[in-house]
Amino acid sequence: MRMYDLIEKKKHGESLTRQEIRQMVRGFVEGEIPDYQMAAMLMAICFKGMEEDEITGLTLEMAASGDVADLSGIEGVKVDKHSTGGVGDKTTLVIGPLAAALGVKVAKMSGRGLGHTGGTIDKLESIPGFETAIPRERFFRIVNETGIAVIGQSGNMVPADKKLYALRDVTATVDSIPLIASSIMSKKIAAGSDGIVLDVKTGSGAFMKELEDSIALAREMVAIGTGAGRRCCALITDMDVPLGSAIGNSLEVIEAIETLKGKGPEDLTEVCLWLCAHMLHLGGKGQIRGCYDMAKGALMDGRGLQTLAAMVKAQGGDPAYILEPERFEKAPFCLALQAEEEGFITHMDTARCGIVSVILGAGRERKEDSIDYSAGILLEKKYGDFVKKGDIIAVLRASRKELLEEASKKLLSAYTIGSEAPPSKKLVYAMVTKDQIVRF
Amino acid sequence: MRMYDLIEKKKHGESLTRQEIRQMVRGFVEGEIPDYQMAAMLMAICFKGMEEDEITGLTLEMAASGDVADLSGIEGVKVDKHSTGGVGDKTTLVIGPLAAALGVKVAKMSGRGLGHTGGTIDKLESIPGFETAIPRERFFRIVNETGIAVIGQSGNMVPADKKLYALRDVTATVDSIPLIASSIMSKKIAAGSDGIVLDVKTGSGAFMKELEDSIALAREMVAIGTGAGRRCCALITDMDVPLGSAIGNSLEVIEAIETLKGKGPEDLTEVCLWLCAHMLHLGGKGQIRGCYDMAKGALMDGRGLQTLAAMVKAQGGDPAYILEPERFEKAPFCLALQAEEEGFITHMDTARCGIVSVILGAGRERKEDSIDYSAGILLEKKYGDFVKKGDIIAVLRASRKELLEEASKKLLSAYTIGSEAPPSKKLVYAMVTKDQIVRF
Repeated sequence: MRMYDLIEKKKHGESLTRQEIRQMVRGFVEGEIPDYQMAAMLMAICFKGMEEDEITGLTLEMAASGDVADLSGIEGVKVDKHSTGGVGDKTTLVIGPLAAALGVKVAKMSGRGLGHTGGTIDKLESIPGFETAIPRERFFRIVNETGIAVIGQSGNMVPADKKLYALRDVTATVDSIPLIASSIMSKKIAAGSDGIVLDVKTGSGAFMKELEDSIALAREMVAIGTGAGRRCCALITDMDVPLGSAIGNSLEVIEAIETLKGKGPEDLTEVCLWLCAHMLHLGGKGQIRGCYDMAKGALMDGRGLQTLAAMVKAQGGDPAYILEPERFEKAPFCLALQAEEEGFITHMDTARCGIVSVILGAGRERKEDSIDYSAGILLEKKYGDFVKKGDIIAVLRASRKELLEEASKKLLSAYTIGSEAPPSKKLVYAMVTKDQIVRF
Repeated sequence: MRMYDLIEKKKHGESLTRQEIRQMVRGFVEGEIPDYQMAAMLMAICFKGMEEDEITGLTLEMAASGDVADLSGIEGVKVDKHSTGGVGDKTTLVIGPLAAALGVKVAKMSGRGLGHTGGTIDKLESIPGFETAIPRERFFRIVNETGIAVIGQSGNMVPADKKLYALRDVTATVDSIPLIASSIMSKKIAAGSDGIVLDVKTGSGAFMKELEDSIALAREMVAIGTGAGRRCCALITDMDVPLGSAIGNSLEVIEAIETLKGKGPEDLTEVCLWLCAHMLHLGGKGQIRGCYDMAKGALMDGRGLQTLAAMVKAQGGDPAYILEPERFEKAPFCLALQAEEEGFITHMDTARCGIVSVILGAGRERKEDSIDYSAGILLEKKYGDFVKKGDIIAVLRASRKELLEEASKKLLSAYTIGSEAPPSKKLVYAMVTKDQIVRF
């Protein structure tokens, strides 16, 4: 089959066979199939979708396109976690150490932030000395000893995804569930863990704005993971409002530390405990409810925090920053954003909050941009809160004073103030497993 | 607007503004917009279509992307004709001279054959000495003196179409009415005639297999032509059966000559007279019916044939071949294909007949292939005819004996024999003008 025929087939809504998908992925990675043919195929997939078999096939072929992690050198059950990305999402920093403290192995490869969403690697690199590019043997040793290590993705993992994503990014073919699901899951499968907990965000700060789209994406990913022989489940969590109060790298690390001390924001703590409960469950530690309680215990008694400190130390970072987070350098300039009117916060444009943090220097517009680890936002007021005129709703921090004004105006415009209290929001909307969808 | 945003817009079914289309066409021709982005756009257009304004805009921007013919050096009303391509379609060789003999100027730029369809330039080049690449001044002089000249498309006309078509051809984005219509009409508009008669084929040998698709394409093209200030109409003619009996270059020239003597196949003659009538009508020669009679008169009294001979002479060809077509060299090998069963011919796979002529050497699979002018097929029996076992249904001609066997088997498989006489077919299904569709 020529690529032309495969495009034609997909254009007419037919399914591609596993053999055809293999040929397509390999040909594309090897440069035999040109970008323009793949671009036409991607657009056809956006319109015509893919069957479950096709998506699983695509994912597995992508996963097999480069190095595949063999985690057999790590003892015990390895459980991974993936978030579809959000604003203020520092859950990995909390639940990774918690799960590790409770006997699940977390051998995690994470990404950097891009656009309005942050990335775990950037957050960790805000800890002085922390290394995210470490060789395999040391990575395994750290996981075996401390229960957890978090590194950046290695050079030649899932090259098919790198090449496909770069093309999707410039051809307006990003927002297709089969393509998103296969992109995420190919990396998770290549990363080699036995279990995968997916945190699929939904709302104004998420990639998927609508709950049903998020559920559909979760279903697809869980089906792929299960089809690939992994234990897999997903939680649909809220990203209509930033998670926690801190947005920005070291600010988020500090908030994660506070959360591991049992003093974090309620929404963040609750989402972390549920996600961790599912990691423990997939790691064979019992039923969800019991796992939730175990996670809460490890949070309250400081075992999670100790594990985070041990990991930071093992990865070359200074653990004193974890135990005394006031050591983190603060951005020299700050601005307290005040409410201009009285009322309830009835909506937050969460993606815009993320963009404001990028403007302040905390994120990247383009991959090659550098990051100011200390810059960011601390939200004092969030969705549902009542504010009076002049109340401080957020504090913005930056290393260059001139960034503050534009950023604060934009942040203010991300808030909608109304006269009536808005309905309360759920933190977790649904749980998706291979067999069921439980809505809360 | 970045190209990314335009793709996104079209993907969501929105219309592109004229300014956006201009930017896109120019950027693509100048190489600023890469093939992969245009491929994604083309696929999005296949799914979401274009509004009439967009299609006209696209066509005019494409037409303006290179040289535009200025035919003001030719006196009188210039009328062009375009066929969407078929098998055995030698109408240009008949109606061009007829219309020219009756006072309409025909300054025609034609194409070569590709795949199962033939091209006028190849057919004319089968006449010894005939030149199709001649300078503009000589082209004008010939049209002014003989009323007609037919040349190949010059170097830098409509580069946007050349580049777009090459990309469509490898990305399975050919079969989109807005893209087909803009491709055809951009060339016709750049070619500069005042009037354009479109012969939109329909049926098994046509690009459009379904009548309604052919009518939709015709409507679109007529709307574009009219929108561009040209007199324009279309006939929807049958290509479910090859037109006439001859398929292959010199064989078709000979059949055109016979037709201009009033001794051609009935179907070909009839289609030619109607097409010519519309050329004359657009050329201001009166109502269709009267024009039909004029065309018939010029055919019966030999004026059309004289004009063809004059054109051939003016373009460097040997007019003796027109007046004595038995001079054309015959392919040395021939095979008479016999019916294997008795019955009515209830269907002909006309595209397959075209492919057989390519196998025999009469056409090209790829642009760079060379052509055997004398090779081809003479159909002795066509749709609706009754055949007995052993009757000759076609004669195949080739310059290499070994080509005949495969070709004859394939040609036989293009015929369906049934026990009942099939319904008779129309030759002209509909006429489309700016204001109306008349179905026959």
